[in-house]
Amino acid sequence: MKFNRKNITIGENVKFGKNIRIGDNSTIYDNVKIGDDSVICNDCVIGEPLSEYYTDINYKNQRTTIGNNAFIRSHSLIYAQVEAGNHFSTGHRVTIREDTLFGDNCRVGTLSDIQGKVSFGNYCWLHSNVHIGQNSTIGDFVFIYPYVVFTNDPHPPSNVCTGPTIGDYTQIAVGSILLPGIQVGENCLIGANAVVTSDIEDYSVVIGNPAKYKCDIRDIPSQENNTMHYPWMHNFSRGMPWENVGYDNWLKNQHG
Amino acid sequence: MKFNRKNITIGENVKFGKNIRIGDNSTIYDNVKIGDDSVICNDCVIGEPLSEYYTDINYKNQRTTIGNNAFIRSHSLIYAQVEAGNHFSTGHRVTIREDTLFGDNCRVGTLSDIQGKVSFGNYCWLHSNVHIGQNSTIGDFVFIYPYVVFTNDPHPPSNVCTGPTIGDYTQIAVGSILLPGIQVGENCLIGANAVVTSDIEDYSVVIGNPAKYKCDIRDIPSQENNTMHYPWMHNFSRGMPWENVGYDNWLKNQHG
Amino acid sequence: MKFNRKNITIGENVKFGKNIRIGDNSTIYDNVKIGDDSVICNDCVIGEPLSEYYTDINYKNQRTTIGNNAFIRSHSLIYAQVEAGNHFSTGHRVTIREDTLFGDNCRVGTLSDIQGKVSFGNYCWLHSNVHIGQNSTIGDFVFIYPYVVFTNDPHPPSNVCTGPTIGDYTQIAVGSILLPGIQVGENCLIGANAVVTSDIEDYSVVIGNPAKYKCDIRDIPSQENNTMHYPWMHNFSRGMPWENVGYDNWLKNQHG
Repeated sequence: MKFNRKNITIGENVKFGKNIRIGDNSTIYDNVKIGDDSVICNDCVIGEPLSEYYTDINYKNQRTTIGNNAFIRSHSLIYAQVEAGNHFSTGHRVTIREDTLFGDNCRVGTLSDIQGKVSFGNYCWLHSNVHIGQNSTIGDFVFIYPYVVFTNDPHPPSNVCTGPTIGDYTQIAVGSILLPGIQVGENCLIGANAVVTSDIEDYSVVIGNPAKYKCDIRDIPSQENNTMHYPWMHNFSRGMPWENVGYDNWLKNQHG
Repeated sequence: MKFNRKNITIGENVKFGKNIRIGDNSTIYDNVKIGDDSVICNDCVIGEPLSEYYTDINYKNQRTTIGNNAFIRSHSLIYAQVEAGNHFSTGHRVTIREDTLFGDNCRVGTLSDIQGKVSFGNYCWLHSNVHIGQNSTIGDFVFIYPYVVFTNDPHPPSNVCTGPTIGDYTQIAVGSILLPGIQVGENCLIGANAVVTSDIEDYSVVIGNPAKYKCDIRDIPSQENNTMHYPWMHNFSRGMPWENVGYDNWLKNQHG
Repeated sequence: MKFNRKNITIGENVKFGKNIRIGDNSTIYDNVKIGDDSVICNDCVIGEPLSEYYTDINYKNQRTTIGNNAFIRSHSLIYAQVEAGNHFSTGHRVTIREDTLFGDNCRVGTLSDIQGKVSFGNYCWLHSNVHIGQNSTIGDFVFIYPYVVFTNDPHPPSNVCTGPTIGDYTQIAVGSILLPGIQVGENCLIGANAVVTSDIEDYSVVIGNPAKYKCDIRDIPSQENNTMHYPWMHNFSRGMPWENVGYDNWLKNQHG
């Protein structure tokens, strides 16, 4: 019942790869490029024009690029000047503003709101209702859970706009808030509802408001087996590039 | 101006009761059943196919059931395999994933996001922007306030997925977070922004991060009269089955 | 590509000013008035009927008024009986319920949810995903950041419904929760994730759960220059009426 090509609007200079499916009532604006084997579900908008569109009669949409094998769920709204790698997927009703860059295999959950000028590495998984402020930088394999907020203004309102920076493999649990300009290391765990007010070193677990160091992440036992749970890459592989070979083997191959 | 039957899409084997109104631009997928006297407002989706729809050409939508007297506000998205009892109502833009079960007289507020594999009793009222993770179990007469999050992974990311369990009559105030597998008793009050990290006994009030026991709920005086406010059923009846008879009389009749 | 006048529905007694643009798939219900030079983007609803519409065949939509130079982004839903001044703007997917009053130059961010019976002064800026409960009163130049929640029921559920009151120039940082009936003074700063449980005097900075007084706002140095940052009106002018003249000069002219 989907993909009837009913009420679809396609702009100029739109480039579709092979085997693309576009849902009903979706709009693809000018200068959008979508890779092979991608699905854009119903009621989506790709390449939403910037606000200058409304005031500048010479406005031209800049390039928007979605890679191969994308899966964009209904009511997602992706602005122009977003660039997403391969295997990009979204939940419903996501909003992604301009000048956002995603590596490969990123996921953005239902209702998440990316404010633009944000850079994500590969395999970043954002669950539902994540809010990422402008000028944030996120590494590879970073998972961000519901209702996390990245901020960027240290003394609101001001003219400073500096988002957090997050290292590879770090996990940011539900409801936590990262204050502007914070540097979070690799392999950290930010606890539920934490307010992170200062930089965090690699392998740290922090909790509370303001967030305080609780322990080394490598000291947390697994609830599934007799190992330590972290670094989690040894205990979790679903959807990861090491899913069939194990993390150590994958890592070895990465470094050649 | 609503209910012009404009741009409505109805799948196969859809069963409508008597006196059903379907808003413009709404889609009802295969194998949906909606009871008598129900209203589906504009731009809704009922019976949204699971993700296998996109990859399996033999995919068939399983049964979705909405009871009598439903009132589904605009832009609500309800997946296949949801079962809701009578007098079910939603706010705008709710998302309800598959394998979710609602008793009678449940309400789900604007922007709430039910992740699926969740069971609600009767008279559960979820206000705006509530997030319920998979494998949660909620009793009868449980009210959940805005920005509450139910989680299910104790050491993210892992393969464990165990949601909270909530007893009858419990109230969960704004912004609180329930950690995975937590058992909350009956007639509890979880304070605003609490992080519940351990089980809670009946009649407990807990606050803070981590949540700590504050008092017995029966020791909180009413702001409306000279009684104790809780158990709240003696002081609040709007929309409840005891609205015209009082809680004690209603309860007596329940037990025959 | 926008403004094709495709699938637009306009009710009775709708009054448009000069130079109005209405996006595709938008619906304007009965008795809506929109001022000059306003833009309503795609998929918006203005003047959404109250719930009596569904049950009362004599229901009539009361007046909804949007001033001049409005900019309403896509998928915004504004109920009947909302009154907004000039230069009103919204993000995407906002929900504004009936009996809400905005002064001039207010902004409501993406996904924000105003529950109705709320009064905003001039130059209130709500960022993304703000939730304002019924019976709240907000002064002028109040900025509210993402995931802030205003509550109104002190002992849920009860029949009491008393929202917070916020003084002019106050800043309410991300994720904070204001409990029912709280009075917040002018020129305050409520810290990230604070839970405000008691009244707050002018010029106070409060943090934590429950929120405690931290310092006088006038003791916070700027990160941009050698002055104190607050009152912020001396250090921030973008979009403010004193943008070209400075706050002191503007204030002098105000008092004439």
